[in-house]
Amino acid sequence: LKAFVFDAYGTLFDVFSVTSLCEDLFPGHGKELANSWRKKQLEYSWLRSLMGRYRGFWGVTEDALVYSAKSLNLEITANERAQLMDCYLHLATFPDVKPGLEELEKIGMHLAILSNGEPEMLRAVVENADLSNFFTDTIFSVESVKEFKPSPRVYDQLSSGLKINKREIGFVSANNWDVNGASSAGFATFWIQRSGFETSEELGYPPTHVVNAITDLRRFRSPK
Amino acid sequence: LKAFVFDAYGTLFDVFSVTSLCEDLFPGHGKELANSWRKKQLEYSWLRSLMGRYRGFWGVTEDALVYSAKSLNLEITANERAQLMDCYLHLATFPDVKPGLEELEKIGMHLAILSNGEPEMLRAVVENADLSNFFTDTIFSVESVKEFKPSPRVYDQLSSGLKINKREIGFVSANNWDVNGASSAGFATFWIQRSGFETSEELGYPPTHVVNAITDLRRFRSPK
Repeated sequence: LKAFVFDAYGTLFDVFSVTSLCEDLFPGHGKELANSWRKKQLEYSWLRSLMGRYRGFWGVTEDALVYSAKSLNLEITANERAQLMDCYLHLATFPDVKPGLEELEKIGMHLAILSNGEPEMLRAVVENADLSNFFTDTIFSVESVKEFKPSPRVYDQLSSGLKINKREIGFVSANNWDVNGASSAGFATFWIQRSGFETSEELGYPPTHVVNAITDLRRFRSPK
Repeated sequence: LKAFVFDAYGTLFDVFSVTSLCEDLFPGHGKELANSWRKKQLEYSWLRSLMGRYRGFWGVTEDALVYSAKSLNLEITANERAQLMDCYLHLATFPDVKPGLEELEKIGMHLAILSNGEPEMLRAVVENADLSNFFTDTIFSVESVKEFKPSPRVYDQLSSGLKINKREIGFVSANNWDVNGASSAGFATFWIQRSGFETSEELGYPPTHVVNAITDLRRFRSPK
């Protein structure tokens, strides 16, 4: 392998960073709002892709927030909505992210991101998390194909984008369905199972490797 | 309108008919198993469509059951799995289904089904519920396009299949996302909101009409 390509939301960035503001704004409902928000965000990305009605991830994320608040009978003001959406530009990274990326960079691996997010959303969250140095000119978005993961068209842009052979690219995600999509598209895949008790999806294209953290990846570099 | 086309699972047939057997087999876990099973069944239908890896709905339904049991730490034998899958051939109908269909038939409406299910699955559940008379030669399946709802290709088969103009077909579903799919594909749509407290999805293609039961549909027939 010459390159590791990382999913962003849920893999580098903790989408549940939003929970504390959800709880501040809607005491007693923070967790269920955050859970529904994430669930619907993904659902809408799949449904819109399948309907052939692409909308950028920022809009899909906001739609999912609106639905979730409504379904939980929470009245949300325009200002609260803006505050919650802003969280998506300031998500926390998991503790293994920076040390893991540093190790991989040190041994000469190419590093990239492939995400549902729009380029501007991604640039902002990467910069705010102080990860820009790792991903100079290597942030790839579904925006170029206007279809969300796990469409093969999303993953297929990697080889030409990185100018690296598909067989030398490892795709890394904590989202098991995303891993199935990349495996199905022909990439070597690494499922990060941080909690250790998530269940693998039954989608037919399981990960090539299962690891617990980004810091476990360095042993997969090509033998020199 | 000359024809009403009904979604099957969740609209004519109660997918939560499975709950009592789930509870018999796994006391204390029936409801969460049934909920997860349905949720994953839909997720897998969307994900596989998007991956370009179609698998028939029977297989997708079984995959979703396997995942759900595993994720809830329930050990399920091959025999229990077969018993639960068999429920899908014997789902109960909602109380408004037979009276509603009878009324519509009486006023000369064409009636059809458009479903994710495979033709054999659909024929069996329709026959076991004693609804075959309403749907002679008018059971349409995604199997012909090998992509699940809400792909427009699924809905687009209706006009040629029924030999009725698209503008004269009303699509009826209790699944709001399915209604959005049919609206987006250009059909007049009817969302059946039986409980009265479900939240509309934020997908951009809301129902043309909202009703509480199939018995509410007869007033939408074309004026003579």
